[in-house]
Formats: sequence, C-alpha cells, structure tokens
Amino acid sequence: MFEFTISSTKRIEMIDITGKVQEIVSKLKVKDGIIFLFVPHTTAGLTINENADMSVQKDIISKMNQIIPENDSYLHSEGNSDSHIKSSMFGCEKFIFIKDGKLFLGTWQGIYFCEFDGPRKRKVYYKII
Amino acid sequence: MFEFTISSTKRIEMIDITGKVQEIVSKLKVKDGIIFLFVPHTTAGLTINENADMSVQKDIISKMNQIIPENDSYLHSEGNSDSHIKSSMFGCEKFIFIKDGKLFLGTWQGIYFCEFDGPRKRKVYYKII
Amino acid sequence: MFEFTISSTKRIEMIDITGKVQEIVSKLKVKDGIIFLFVPHTTAGLTINENADMSVQKDIISKMNQIIPENDSYLHSEGNSDSHIKSSMFGCEKFIFIKDGKLFLGTWQGIYFCEFDGPRKRKVYYKII
Repeated sequence: MFEFTISSTKRIEMIDITGKVQEIVSKLKVKDGIIFLFVPHTTAGLTINENADMSVQKDIISKMNQIIPENDSYLHSEGNSDSHIKSSMFGCEKFIFIKDGKLFLGTWQGIYFCEFDGPRKRKVYYKII
Repeated sequence: MFEFTISSTKRIEMIDITGKVQEIVSKLKVKDGIIFLFVPHTTAGLTINENADMSVQKDIISKMNQIIPENDSYLHSEGNSDSHIKSSMFGCEKFIFIKDGKLFLGTWQGIYFCEFDGPRKRKVYYKII
Repeated sequence: MFEFTISSTKRIEMIDITGKVQEIVSKLKVKDGIIFLFVPHTTAGLTINENADMSVQKDIISKMNQIIPENDSYLHSEGNSDSHIKSSMFGCEKFIFIKDGKLFLGTWQGIYFCEFDGPRKRKVYYKII
C-alpha cells in the first residue's frame, strides 16, 4: 500500500487525478488488475465524472453547494459540517479496473479528488490487486 | 475482465441487472469471491435497492429529479448536467460477494443499472476475484 | 465470508462499527489486505466520517432528513421510501485497507453503519482479501 499527496487551492474543488493514478499503474508495471483508492479524510471524497467540459465540474459543485450549503443551522462548531456531509454523499473510496497496463475508464471518465474543505494538503492511499 | 451491454428505453430509469450478473457468475462457475461492477459512463450509475415493490424505484427517481432537476441554471450546454450530478451521487461502481455460486445479496436486494440520460446503449464492465 | 450483527435503537442512526471491524481483523490475524463490508439491507447503508465530535453525525442525519423527509408524496406504501433513497445515496458497501494488522483509516475517520429504518436487528457481511 502506498500513497500520494495533493494540494488543493480552494475550499471546494474537483482535482483531476487520472494522470497521477495512471502514472502509478505504469510505474508498477501492472498489466491487469484493480486499483483501489482511499481518501483518509472526512471532508473530502472521490468521484468519477466527465473529463472534457470543465463546466460539468462547476455544475456538480454548485448543485452540491445548493443542496448542502456551507452556512446552515449546523451543530458542529468548526464551520465545515457541509464538507462532512458532502464527503458521505460522494464517498471516500473508488476502484478502477486495469487492462493492458491502462486504467480501463470510459472515454469521458476522469477520476476526481473532491476537496470539500480546502485549501489543504491531502493524501490518497492506493492498493493494487 | 469482461463486459455486458444494456439498452435503456427512458431518460431516467433503473434497470434490474441482478439476473444478468448471476448468469455471469453461474457461467464462469465461480463458487466464492467478489464480483466488481463498473459503469464506464458519466451519466449513469449503479445502486443496490429493493427488488419487490416497483414503487420504490419510482420514489427514488422522483426524489432524485426533485433534488437535481433536469432544467436548472446549469453551465454545461448539453442539457444533461443533472445526469452527471446524479451519476456522482450514486457512483459508477459496486461490488457484491459470491457464496456457493450465488450472489450473496439480502432478500430484498436487487442490483440496478441507473440510466440518467437515456435512452442509450450502455456497458457494464465486470471482474471477479 | 462472515457476518456480524448490529442492533439499532432509533429510526435513523449512525452506529460506529470501527471497533467491531478492527476486532475481526485482529482475530483473523490479517496483517495486510483489504476488508470489504456489505450491508444486505435496502434501508440501511455504510459511511466513513468523523469519529470525534458527535455533532457531525447529528448534522449528517438532520441534513439527510431535510433533503429526503420521512413524509412526502411517496408511492411506496410501507412508509419508508425515504430510508430506501437514503440507502442508495450512501451505498451499502465500503472497503478499508489493512496495514500491519490495523485498519488503515485517517485520524478522524470512523466506519458507521447507517440505520435509516430502525430500530432493527441488522447484519454486516465481510470478506478479506
């Protein structure tokens, strides 16, 4: 099991990590298998979505902010309850198939680290089977 | 790794693929293990939910449409921003245990392909460990 | 594949099962691997979130109830449509890495069984690879 780090620059942000994950698979020379990704944070998550038009990411973030606004009648005093809820909605883990040394994603799919309480330095753990 | 195809007939639809997945497990004569399912599309997803009363599926779809309506002030110009957001909410991957050659699901659980931008011809990838 | 049981005491509740899952890993003397958890119910789920301040759980539950209220114009006649929808939103499965005999979670992460239609006696299946 290994990890890599990401630096987010905004409070809420989707960061494309597809290239980073492919790099790992290539370096380890894995031909076939499954890569499991796990985010060890409670105010971040992972999702797989459109990698072409950036406006999709903006729509995802803006709808999430509308459903779960930053400011609401939350009990948690750190001001990031929305980040925790968003994290549970998206989940902190994903798996992706590997075929012939490549991440076997759909044409329009990218893997995104979802920052919900940045900017922060974050980790992603991974394991390949 | 293999794949199967599905044809959806509506814009938003939950299609029961439990039988198809069980068929795969039976054909491959897998006794014990885990089957991993992955949808290579950004406007579709997978979920596991009630297989008895069809009205549950209708309630799920109608609530999803209420929270994330088809028409809203989205930036993405293809008219399917809601489909992308729904996809991220449900996720594009699932795993199910196999025991004694059968999918080890709960009594009321079925596996559903969630079409969020149909009708289309879709794929589901799978891998068994 | 094995299972353990949980007794919920409220209609909607997040129950910390981190200790139980660690106990399983310790008993089986697994040093490294992945534990896969699967809830065989359609009105419950799993999530990983903050283990320190209990008010985070309260905020998660209260926001979920606000987005998907118990009473709405649902078709399903059992009065638990909201529970089914919440289950699909959170998902019924999770995987967690194991390193040196310990669940490899982030400092603030706990594993939660999410009861959405209790009180009930529930099961969690698990499998380690």
